[in-house]
Amino acid sequence: MTHAGAEREVFQKLRRAMRAAGCDALVAHSVDNVTYTAGFAVPSHPTNRFRRTITVLAGQNFAAQIVVTVEANLARATSRFADVRTYDQFGDDPADALADALIEAGVGEGRIAVELDYLPAQDFLRLRERLPRATFVPARDIYFSTRMIKTADEITRLTTVGTLTDRVAGEVLAAVRPGMSEKTLARLATEKMLDGGCSAVKVQVGSGVRSGITNCAPTDKAIEPGDVLRLEILGDMNQYRSNVTRTAVVGAPTDEQRKIWDVMIGARERCKALLRPGTPVAALYRTYVDHLRANDIEPTLRFLGHGIGQTIHEEPYITDARDVVLEPDITFTMEPLYMMPGRMGFHVEDMYRVTPDGFVPITGTITPNDALIRVGG
Amino acid sequence: MTHAGAEREVFQKLRRAMRAAGCDALVAHSVDNVTYTAGFAVPSHPTNRFRRTITVLAGQNFAAQIVVTVEANLARATSRFADVRTYDQFGDDPADALADALIEAGVGEGRIAVELDYLPAQDFLRLRERLPRATFVPARDIYFSTRMIKTADEITRLTTVGTLTDRVAGEVLAAVRPGMSEKTLARLATEKMLDGGCSAVKVQVGSGVRSGITNCAPTDKAIEPGDVLRLEILGDMNQYRSNVTRTAVVGAPTDEQRKIWDVMIGARERCKALLRPGTPVAALYRTYVDHLRANDIEPTLRFLGHGIGQTIHEEPYITDARDVVLEPDITFTMEPLYMMPGRMGFHVEDMYRVTPDGFVPITGTITPNDALIRVGG
Repeated sequence: MTHAGAEREVFQKLRRAMRAAGCDALVAHSVDNVTYTAGFAVPSHPTNRFRRTITVLAGQNFAAQIVVTVEANLARATSRFADVRTYDQFGDDPADALADALIEAGVGEGRIAVELDYLPAQDFLRLRERLPRATFVPARDIYFSTRMIKTADEITRLTTVGTLTDRVAGEVLAAVRPGMSEKTLARLATEKMLDGGCSAVKVQVGSGVRSGITNCAPTDKAIEPGDVLRLEILGDMNQYRSNVTRTAVVGAPTDEQRKIWDVMIGARERCKALLRPGTPVAALYRTYVDHLRANDIEPTLRFLGHGIGQTIHEEPYITDARDVVLEPDITFTMEPLYMMPGRMGFHVEDMYRVTPDGFVPITGTITPNDALIRVGG
Repeated sequence: MTHAGAEREVFQKLRRAMRAAGCDALVAHSVDNVTYTAGFAVPSHPTNRFRRTITVLAGQNFAAQIVVTVEANLARATSRFADVRTYDQFGDDPADALADALIEAGVGEGRIAVELDYLPAQDFLRLRERLPRATFVPARDIYFSTRMIKTADEITRLTTVGTLTDRVAGEVLAAVRPGMSEKTLARLATEKMLDGGCSAVKVQVGSGVRSGITNCAPTDKAIEPGDVLRLEILGDMNQYRSNVTRTAVVGAPTDEQRKIWDVMIGARERCKALLRPGTPVAALYRTYVDHLRANDIEPTLRFLGHGIGQTIHEEPYITDARDVVLEPDITFTMEPLYMMPGRMGFHVEDMYRVTPDGFVPITGTITPNDALIRVGG
């Protein structure tokens, strides 16, 4: 699909969801929703919270992006929006620029979807002051439901970064030798991901008792024989993300380790058998929990996985706290995880895409992980 | 200073500023203010905007941090707060956990400083519903003014990361050879910064006409003889930041390039002569602008620099839109910058600290940059 085609597709999908929600305008402020809408990330948006970056779709045709002056050139060169407006960071209130745009679009008294779960209170108060006859409703579900179903362009990006991550995870585990530090492994993974084309990477490594910490930032601890080793790689390429986790044992697994692993993988395989349009995500989660509990394992997290796309965690969370039903082109991870704090931890995470008939794995095809991986030469 | 001492110092400074503002409680939600208050960063706070992380100081003694359940163990092990409370990401509203804490602290009908410029509208609406007799006022200036004046511990961290960055910038420029790509240079800088102990790094490289783009992400473009080369390094070590920028020419500078550079450095030196307690930041900015305009250069940015600490950009911005007067232990950058889009760009940035008598440079002492740097072997 051409760039212009992908552009039209995202705008069209969002306008459709906006209308279905009975709204006249759809406004985004968050990094994820603005980046999704505009098709590019304003560099200082995630790092400078005072530089509001806003997208506005209204009615049939109105489409504008509002950025701080200093980002205007890049936005005009890169954004999907032909209409890029600016405000001065020190002199103007971006909420006024937004109110002006909504009035110009003819929806100043309309029903306007804004990110009430992100829009700062003072911007909201200012908007209400400027547009006293408008009705403000949450934009959350409009974006969630639209972003959940990926376009062909998004699937290509997710597949590219996922495949790289799957390969790198295998290569890094193959390179493990006792005596290497967690940080050395993380560096190796980072370099391979950057070499593969990622703009950013995050790598978690936990070995030995540290494998039992959920978010284990790598340390100088040396990998030792007998360690359980947990490696999680999160890539960022062309604004789309990957999330792959592997657990290995340095040397031969114990019976206990093998048994726990078999339960985790058993639960995952049961869930995979349910992956098709029509399956509620809550059913996946319950299948997972039931299988673990039947084997005397209490799951550590209250979700089995999460949607993945422009952000690492997005809808649908695979949990019984969500009533989402699988549809084609939903992309998500499943990540059976069991932490035994002070002892060890187990975690395997792969990315999947729902198809009209079932699913395809995005990762997990390069290095088999049905059996607990042995590393260490 | 001991960890406990640094802890007491930050809490004491914030409580003092809270009382001076006539407030009974001080609540933070943003990554920067929460990290500053708690002394550690919750890993998923910056990446998952649905996981609210909150700090509360109230009255003489109440101090609590509110985190999502999955981050509780790490918070309890690392946070300055002895009282860490949790909420369930899928079942609870963190605004309720906050309201409960404020009631428990006895300030449910008090004057409560919240980040109106960050607190999501729906959390604000819920707080007002739960605490209808409370008064909510902006926390912005309380945090700005407190964070602007660094503690001894913060100055040590900034000096460590600044010195590393200054050294790495010099080493990377010394390694430049025509034919190397911008990305290769950026990778080299990244590796040296990580080797030096940074947990994260961002490197901008723009060469040739790309040096004239303000935020120039590195590309595969090869460095060529005659290129102006702009290298900006932003480090992150122990939750404190560095920001150093150098401009060099590959080979011999032209007369035009040398003349522009002399104007930029001339402006900087005039500003350095004013760096002492009592100087308004607006005076620095005007001195800079006046010197450039007197030499027929129109400055590209509307600020000369910015405070630096737990975040890259913080108060004081060095601009006439701020009425801050320099005080000892304010840390900031000055970054004369002049972009000539489509041709080339010039940018030099160093970090400074105000002392009782004047200032000390945090960076800019390792590799001289008064004259335009020549690189390329």
